[in-house]
Amino acid sequence: MSNTFGNNIKVTIFGQSHSPAIGVCVDGLPSGFRIDFDDLNSFLRRRAPGRGAYTTSRGEPDEPEFISGLVGGVTCGAPLTAVIRNTDTRPRDYEQIRDVPRPSHADYSSYMKYGVARDFRGGGAFSGRLTAPLCVVGGICLQLLRQKGIDVAAHIAQIGGVHDRAFDPSGACEDDISVLRAASFPVLDAEAGAKMLLAIEEARLDGDSLGGVVECIATGVPAGLGEPMFGGLENRLAAIIFGIPAVKGVEFGNGFAAAGLRGSENNDAFVADGGVIRTRTNRHGGILGGISSGMPILFRAAFKPTPSISACQDSVSLSRMENVKLVIAGRHDPCVAPRAVPCVEAAAAIAIYDSLLDPAM
Amino acid sequence: MSNTFGNNIKVTIFGQSHSPAIGVCVDGLPSGFRIDFDDLNSFLRRRAPGRGAYTTSRGEPDEPEFISGLVGGVTCGAPLTAVIRNTDTRPRDYEQIRDVPRPSHADYSSYMKYGVARDFRGGGAFSGRLTAPLCVVGGICLQLLRQKGIDVAAHIAQIGGVHDRAFDPSGACEDDISVLRAASFPVLDAEAGAKMLLAIEEARLDGDSLGGVVECIATGVPAGLGEPMFGGLENRLAAIIFGIPAVKGVEFGNGFAAAGLRGSENNDAFVADGGVIRTRTNRHGGILGGISSGMPILFRAAFKPTPSISACQDSVSLSRMENVKLVIAGRHDPCVAPRAVPCVEAAAAIAIYDSLLDPAM
Amino acid sequence: MSNTFGNNIKVTIFGQSHSPAIGVCVDGLPSGFRIDFDDLNSFLRRRAPGRGAYTTSRGEPDEPEFISGLVGGVTCGAPLTAVIRNTDTRPRDYEQIRDVPRPSHADYSSYMKYGVARDFRGGGAFSGRLTAPLCVVGGICLQLLRQKGIDVAAHIAQIGGVHDRAFDPSGACEDDISVLRAASFPVLDAEAGAKMLLAIEEARLDGDSLGGVVECIATGVPAGLGEPMFGGLENRLAAIIFGIPAVKGVEFGNGFAAAGLRGSENNDAFVADGGVIRTRTNRHGGILGGISSGMPILFRAAFKPTPSISACQDSVSLSRMENVKLVIAGRHDPCVAPRAVPCVEAAAAIAIYDSLLDPAM
Amino acid sequence: MSNTFGNNIKVTIFGQSHSPAIGVCVDGLPSGFRIDFDDLNSFLRRRAPGRGAYTTSRGEPDEPEFISGLVGGVTCGAPLTAVIRNTDTRPRDYEQIRDVPRPSHADYSSYMKYGVARDFRGGGAFSGRLTAPLCVVGGICLQLLRQKGIDVAAHIAQIGGVHDRAFDPSGACEDDISVLRAASFPVLDAEAGAKMLLAIEEARLDGDSLGGVVECIATGVPAGLGEPMFGGLENRLAAIIFGIPAVKGVEFGNGFAAAGLRGSENNDAFVADGGVIRTRTNRHGGILGGISSGMPILFRAAFKPTPSISACQDSVSLSRMENVKLVIAGRHDPCVAPRAVPCVEAAAAIAIYDSLLDPAM
Repeated sequence: MSNTFGNNIKVTIFGQSHSPAIGVCVDGLPSGFRIDFDDLNSFLRRRAPGRGAYTTSRGEPDEPEFISGLVGGVTCGAPLTAVIRNTDTRPRDYEQIRDVPRPSHADYSSYMKYGVARDFRGGGAFSGRLTAPLCVVGGICLQLLRQKGIDVAAHIAQIGGVHDRAFDPSGACEDDISVLRAASFPVLDAEAGAKMLLAIEEARLDGDSLGGVVECIATGVPAGLGEPMFGGLENRLAAIIFGIPAVKGVEFGNGFAAAGLRGSENNDAFVADGGVIRTRTNRHGGILGGISSGMPILFRAAFKPTPSISACQDSVSLSRMENVKLVIAGRHDPCVAPRAVPCVEAAAAIAIYDSLLDPAM
Repeated sequence: MSNTFGNNIKVTIFGQSHSPAIGVCVDGLPSGFRIDFDDLNSFLRRRAPGRGAYTTSRGEPDEPEFISGLVGGVTCGAPLTAVIRNTDTRPRDYEQIRDVPRPSHADYSSYMKYGVARDFRGGGAFSGRLTAPLCVVGGICLQLLRQKGIDVAAHIAQIGGVHDRAFDPSGACEDDISVLRAASFPVLDAEAGAKMLLAIEEARLDGDSLGGVVECIATGVPAGLGEPMFGGLENRLAAIIFGIPAVKGVEFGNGFAAAGLRGSENNDAFVADGGVIRTRTNRHGGILGGISSGMPILFRAAFKPTPSISACQDSVSLSRMENVKLVIAGRHDPCVAPRAVPCVEAAAAIAIYDSLLDPAM
Repeated sequence: MSNTFGNNIKVTIFGQSHSPAIGVCVDGLPSGFRIDFDDLNSFLRRRAPGRGAYTTSRGEPDEPEFISGLVGGVTCGAPLTAVIRNTDTRPRDYEQIRDVPRPSHADYSSYMKYGVARDFRGGGAFSGRLTAPLCVVGGICLQLLRQKGIDVAAHIAQIGGVHDRAFDPSGACEDDISVLRAASFPVLDAEAGAKMLLAIEEARLDGDSLGGVVECIATGVPAGLGEPMFGGLENRLAAIIFGIPAVKGVEFGNGFAAAGLRGSENNDAFVADGGVIRTRTNRHGGILGGISSGMPILFRAAFKPTPSISACQDSVSLSRMENVKLVIAGRHDPCVAPRAVPCVEAAAAIAIYDSLLDPAM
Repeated sequence: MSNTFGNNIKVTIFGQSHSPAIGVCVDGLPSGFRIDFDDLNSFLRRRAPGRGAYTTSRGEPDEPEFISGLVGGVTCGAPLTAVIRNTDTRPRDYEQIRDVPRPSHADYSSYMKYGVARDFRGGGAFSGRLTAPLCVVGGICLQLLRQKGIDVAAHIAQIGGVHDRAFDPSGACEDDISVLRAASFPVLDAEAGAKMLLAIEEARLDGDSLGGVVECIATGVPAGLGEPMFGGLENRLAAIIFGIPAVKGVEFGNGFAAAGLRGSENNDAFVADGGVIRTRTNRHGGILGGISSGMPILFRAAFKPTPSISACQDSVSLSRMENVKLVIAGRHDPCVAPRAVPCVEAAAAIAIYDSLLDPAM
């Protein structure tokens, strides 16, 4: 009872890794919007597996079929539903985890919630595969936002011990965004990217995995968006970002670093600049009191290392309540951060577009 | 349209810093629960101002009046409403910020949202004062949780550059919790606490402020709590924690540190231990796939330094659209982290109690 | 968990008949709206008791105190909270119903839901008194609607066997609305009104009560309001109207009478009329497919007779599980329909104003 | 933004009459429930077209494909999604209504809401066809309710001027329910049924249509279900029942008839009866103060006559804003009441099951 997000649009994601299909139903999109399918498909390809050594070899076209909400490629006001068939499912790969939960996966917690009837195959509804429908609706929201002069982009800020340079917090990053959109490995600093790929390859060869951080920027967001208290942009962004599997932290602007600073080091002076008010610095990440300030929205999401590793791990037999050893077979990414980049963009686009539809005050 | 939190209880917080009153209405509490008012008041005192050099000198008793939902101190099933009168309001202190927004406060963003009619006095609805009603309902939820063997506690993990030791992630921290509840300055390591107080005092003397981090633990949470995707415990906790003013980051378990680790370093092995399954380590912070694992829930919230500092700052005149200098008068804490500790406990208690009421699967 | 109504504004009503106070918190009202308190108070007086032989003699001023959300009588964007003190409470009147539920009241069903802790005094949270805060927010919504050319009015369509004439479904009823607003007994046909008063007086003398029907019209509602399926204007109006105590039926346009008609008798032809499209008749009550047609919205709500009557009735002792006789003391209206008229207007105004704030398509 | 219903389960219905598919996604169903597909299919057949002269001749198997939420026919806790393909679509039938709205259909109001992009083909998302997915989830909820001793049944109470006998309000209607479930034309009194069929056939031959009333009973509902104010069983049932196309009125128990009664005629005495409390009569329809009394829930829904009739009607050209004549071609039922019977059962089952999942007090 949690697969729905949004106050003004309702995004409902459904499906399991090995159910006949996964998909999304979005209620509340405006009517009369012509979806740019080329743009959408190229956005989806950025998340699709099989693009590099760092992704799973599961090869599925993941082309959404739109079964409602469109007439001739144009939204008609009725809920838009997209379905992606699960074609490349190999249930036998997962038979062993029926009884032995994989460490740091949702296998055990979901068993405790849903019991023996839960769908354990490939992580069931907890699979990273569910980010595909998230990207379908996020990609459409991105198109809707661009119509209003808002853009959203993300890059890999960190993998293991390697850091990319950060976005310019003033929002002067149009060139960066163009580069990222075309990149097969979305970083701002090519050298850092090469080191990251090396670190991933090393982890992969070790049968291990790596965590990472994705930084996201939203430019062109007008001031005054968001609601106070529990409906702030930070609350709403965090609520959807934590819906992406493996996210364990979200911070805005200076984030955790602000804890080590003084007010004089963290405050952002206001300046009037040719009839526009902006802040000289953007340590607040574009959000004050939950409400946008007109500066770019900046946040970072921490992804834990892929829990599926090759090493033999300690686990338990649920049926026999005894300790056992587990070696995980099957396909998995050694690092989710690269493919998470468009997912973070999608989630941010959904939350920001939803906020744009808040009733005007 | 955002001052309400919860799926199964509905917590609605209202009021402004200088309105006649602030308060909270909670719908969905069980009937027949006798509130322990001594316990509640001692909880509220932990948040109350005026306890140390690090808090504002605004002196208000902040005693809630319960105007609905109780019969003889026992919940009756009807919405419980508590009201706290604002008695010590000095509106003249704030007259200047009508036109000149304070850097890194919500003054500007709320002006852009609500226009000239917004209540700018003392930060209006964005004031930290609104955490008082949050603590009223949080304190009651804490009592309800303890009935079910769940406890929630927090401490100051960091202020400026000084770090407290962390909670034992295995949850062996009953003694720590007892100490914290009685402490005037809630830290686990008294020496670190002394250094923090010194750092705060230095900042205060410099007319400056300091950020901090609060770490929170919830013990006794059964496995299987929370919902997948957007209704996970992480999503719900983040959604309410970001409702506390000045929070700029939330992380669970290893959080951002996980980004620098390998899976073999971050995974938590399962062990069967006397008929109970637990994890050997607790790097996941008690939540896997959004659902509790039965291990203690552990998270950290980053607070930015109080934006109100004594130094002359650059700002703008909203009416004249020109740059001006601003010197902030009025009362303010040099560091919000100490008083934020019970607020984080309150918010966590509300989110966890709300999750406990999710329909069983 | 149900005292909140609305998608775009959130109206939360709280309080019990004999709690310290009752009240309402409304989140989402626009900022900058100056409330006309004279207009609001005259609206509230239409619901207030003590105006005629047909109302309870409980005399309370019922003046709301606005404790949040206003600055100088103008909304500031923060949640608006109004509190009405319960001053004239005589708990002894109700002591007997602690154990013996009154027939056709909520005493028994609320006992089965909330147990012995429920507030039985005066019906607790089920008291008709809770319509006072509904009228506070409804009266404000009415003012907001009038700014947009929308008006809402209601009259007593039936009491016992006496029928008033109906509103002109074409919406030509400005004069009627003026008359109703000033009337102490809101009917369109004075003769019918006199007969109704007579019927009420007869019932009162017999220690009995009478049911009634309230008809409501909303003029000036633009076409295209409402959402399909579960979010239609009919669904939303019904969901709030059934929140008024004693309502047992709601119908739109021809309503139940349409069941006896043929399509050729019930259809409304469209006509283009000076650049405007309207329907020649208005049997659909201004709503087609849940969405407004631009014609006046017309609906009727059925109120059951006041269940509190003087006759000795059969009931049970909850503690002894045996049959007992019950004679109800205390104050009560012999017919709720007259005072229900502004309540229906208030509820309709809230639902329509909430729908007006739906995101544009 | 309205195609989702429910507090504890979330039922989202999607699709248009002529989109590739229609369907439903249900979040919150318990895991481990084995669906009885034979029972479900026989329930769906009761709604399916093509069973008699009184239904449209559109012949579609309407077999749902379950694409998520099941493992081997058993719910797994993830959202359950069912899709029904639209195979027998003849778009040319509807081309004329692109510009000329059909009287008393949603064509005009939806045009005013969604503009030229709305899906006008076959009524788009406003088609009665959308009740098929409603029945899929309703049929499953019925099975879940029966596990708890709750049954829901409905019959045609009235068509045109012909009335069926009513359910026994005491709930002694097991035989009636068995008869109804097997009947091709669901009435309690076969003679009345024959007259209704005759009236429908007469209307059909005249190219006209007829309205009707469906009465619904839910037996075995425990006392204490529902929430006060806006979350009452009446509010929630009405909110979903008005989601069925053509419903124009809903009443509980005595409903509108109560308006003509005195309290002494409408009250229901309580009686203790072998350790159980019940009411001697059931004029309240099993709901008092929004909360179930333990007596059967009884309500009636009024359906307007099918607006599609053969007669030439007055309408307008939307593009030319001038009056035109319209003759409707295409397929349509002369009376929707017969096929509405399982839809009402489905809607009631969903609302009651959702209420059963409310947190216990």
